[in-house]
Amino acid sequence: MDICLLDATELARLVRCRELSAREVVAAHLARIERVNPVVNAIVTLDADGALAAAAEADERLVRGVEPGPLHGLPIAFKDTHLTRGMRTTQGSPLLADFVPDEDELLVQRIELGGAIRMGKTNIPEFAAGSHTFNPVFGATRNPYGLDRSAGGSSGGAAAALAAGLQPIADGSDMGGSLRNPASFCNVVGLRTTPGRVPVHPALDLWGSLTVAGPMGRTVADVALLLSVMAGPDPRCPLSLETPGEVFRAPLERDLRGLRVAWAPDLGGRVPVDSDVRGVLDEQVKVFEELGCHVEEACPDLDGADEVFRTLRAQSFELSLGVFLEAAPGALKPSLVWNIEEGRKLTGADLARATTERTRIHLAVARFFERYDVLLAPVSQVAPFPVELEYPAVVDGQPQHTYIDWMRSAYLLSVPATPALSVPAGFTPDGLPVGLQIVGPSRADRAVLEVGAAYEAATGHGRRRPRLPE
Amino acid sequence: MDICLLDATELARLVRCRELSAREVVAAHLARIERVNPVVNAIVTLDADGALAAAAEADERLVRGVEPGPLHGLPIAFKDTHLTRGMRTTQGSPLLADFVPDEDELLVQRIELGGAIRMGKTNIPEFAAGSHTFNPVFGATRNPYGLDRSAGGSSGGAAAALAAGLQPIADGSDMGGSLRNPASFCNVVGLRTTPGRVPVHPALDLWGSLTVAGPMGRTVADVALLLSVMAGPDPRCPLSLETPGEVFRAPLERDLRGLRVAWAPDLGGRVPVDSDVRGVLDEQVKVFEELGCHVEEACPDLDGADEVFRTLRAQSFELSLGVFLEAAPGALKPSLVWNIEEGRKLTGADLARATTERTRIHLAVARFFERYDVLLAPVSQVAPFPVELEYPAVVDGQPQHTYIDWMRSAYLLSVPATPALSVPAGFTPDGLPVGLQIVGPSRADRAVLEVGAAYEAATGHGRRRPRLPE
Repeated sequence: MDICLLDATELARLVRCRELSAREVVAAHLARIERVNPVVNAIVTLDADGALAAAAEADERLVRGVEPGPLHGLPIAFKDTHLTRGMRTTQGSPLLADFVPDEDELLVQRIELGGAIRMGKTNIPEFAAGSHTFNPVFGATRNPYGLDRSAGGSSGGAAAALAAGLQPIADGSDMGGSLRNPASFCNVVGLRTTPGRVPVHPALDLWGSLTVAGPMGRTVADVALLLSVMAGPDPRCPLSLETPGEVFRAPLERDLRGLRVAWAPDLGGRVPVDSDVRGVLDEQVKVFEELGCHVEEACPDLDGADEVFRTLRAQSFELSLGVFLEAAPGALKPSLVWNIEEGRKLTGADLARATTERTRIHLAVARFFERYDVLLAPVSQVAPFPVELEYPAVVDGQPQHTYIDWMRSAYLLSVPATPALSVPAGFTPDGLPVGLQIVGPSRADRAVLEVGAAYEAATGHGRRRPRLPE
Repeated sequence: MDICLLDATELARLVRCRELSAREVVAAHLARIERVNPVVNAIVTLDADGALAAAAEADERLVRGVEPGPLHGLPIAFKDTHLTRGMRTTQGSPLLADFVPDEDELLVQRIELGGAIRMGKTNIPEFAAGSHTFNPVFGATRNPYGLDRSAGGSSGGAAAALAAGLQPIADGSDMGGSLRNPASFCNVVGLRTTPGRVPVHPALDLWGSLTVAGPMGRTVADVALLLSVMAGPDPRCPLSLETPGEVFRAPLERDLRGLRVAWAPDLGGRVPVDSDVRGVLDEQVKVFEELGCHVEEACPDLDGADEVFRTLRAQSFELSLGVFLEAAPGALKPSLVWNIEEGRKLTGADLARATTERTRIHLAVARFFERYDVLLAPVSQVAPFPVELEYPAVVDGQPQHTYIDWMRSAYLLSVPATPALSVPAGFTPDGLPVGLQIVGPSRADRAVLEVGAAYEAATGHGRRRPRLPE
């Protein structure tokens, strides 16, 4: 039994019934991190001693008869955007390279309260901007399925660490694909949750609903397990949904016969998709037919979503990073400076228009989901691209002008308040992973996980692990 | 028995057990509207024939054994901001004087589905802007407790109609006091709900949380009854709370002994309050001590709330009314033009600052409610002022520069996402009503109603009805 390749669900079961100790689990992961992390660069801060001490405590608690949490004994490195008390939280920026927070972010608290053991932090792009993980503090994260390839981002360290067996669960966050793209690139699972499903605290904008936090794992069931401790209301968060997280702990089994499935291979002609990705996904859609679904090619009306996303994203960057631009104008990557400056140019009327357009799109998508139970789409328009590029310059023959152009298949679906799962869907002829995006109605996070689990059970693409030098 | 002065709760009971027919109830209200409405001008559109026909149908349904809704047989005139199919919805603007919507707003649907009978529409200020009800289409609404006085606004027609016995329940909405101020001025009850408690559809901004819809009535129990049909999730509204409306149908009885009450007579020195209002409220706070509460003078940190409110309000006006300013610049009142132009001047950075400030204030208020169960404050800083004024020029000796300055005691408490109840608290030496504002933690709408009901039961100020020429 290789501890580091077990599902989180199975691993938690083994620890709970004391077939494995938390200390063994953590030690096995630390050993693998020592061997494998240098080649993928997924985990950028590591506290091995702290993790082993916490594991020993967890074992003692179990011996004393304390009821274990659902994640009891599972090691985790948190995304380096998320505040961790006493552990540096750099945001991938030289400006914060030595910043050690004095508090834990709410999701860190919840995951530890659920029994997980903090090991360290995972790599991200500078200030988590863009979907390719490299920054001047720690360099680039490499894709375990092709070390010369991008792991995606911004939760790129998280996805690569999962794929490489460095941790069994991972937290991510997603504004425009930040946990879906890396899941797709690294052949793991990530859920962009409905806004409010996972409350975020502290937050600069408690009413913001473009960026969400969410769970990542190697299986859909593992993602649901992690979500069960991340989700649930918090009195400080006015958007937090009232449903308790425990609803995600029930088995995900579901018969898909009769499910009304819409398939949007290029989001209704709105995005170019490379033929190697398209070829993989065209085949996968047939799986849903074999499972008894009614599949039709259809896409909701996403006109205007591009402008809405770029407007709200620019405002968000101005809101969170404007202060850094003022304090140290030369210390931000040029694409970030561009985004902040775009945010500064926005007028009240621009933002009003983005808001009304977003409302219109959300309602169009809600109507779409009266006719269909789920929407299938590509997660990424491209397979993992060379790690030294900032972004792919061309997609299916179309030039990409900025570092976010190629992320449209993910970010257009950030505009409505809908959940979106990225689930492994196979490999290109070059052996690079491709993800399938499963989108459901607002708040139907559970339904999306159920559909993803049925598809996963029928295909098992996520079972193909990367070969890594050890 | 005067049908028109019965509580809605009692009236609904009598109809349900067939001691009164819906037709009798509606006919009695129509007769009173004919006699009394000309002096108060609260109801500005009336469909007597439609209401009687609907009442006859409601009676038939009951005879046939159809389970009656909680509002079965209760007549209502909807706020003239709320879309009503086939019934003009003017917004108090000459631009929309002949506008007849082809759909009902969600809250209209829910209230009718709950058994209420549509009679007409209630008066508002032009585009519901400001807290004094007058407009060029229908003129001013007069206060039933002093016909030369303002009924408040924007739900001024609703409050005056309740006070004058023209309807037993009323719908309101509130951005900066729009259902609290008129409730205070007209000696009735109004609840500014937690954002998301009452989903609004259609809406230009589904993510907006400054303006909320809420129930109004002559008693706290009536307000809870109406809320029970207005509240509950809607799949189209991403902010809607998941708790079903039925939770508001359980009795409100509560023992207040030990309740931790904060009393903020001038919101921590942030607002001037006229001495006649202050005098009334100082006495009322003692009631809470007599009920066994621990009362302390305290106020949450609302610094910055003024700027946040004005910024978000200006953006909201630009969003909803900018199109009218372009189409017919001369057809809007100057204060509206000012607000829209303020909205147009806003930058992305202004809005980002408002957002982060609002977040900070919301969290400060959340922390405050760890120490206190409720906050008591004045609803209005002034007693009902002369109806011919646009706004009071001076409050407690301090000049008021704009038509919204005097509403601060209400609008500062719109900034956190907290529920706020306006409940009758007595009368000035001139016999004009004064309201007490009871604010609770975010989502604690039920707790706020319970505290209001206990206070109401101990005092009974709402029982003093106005003397009107009939």
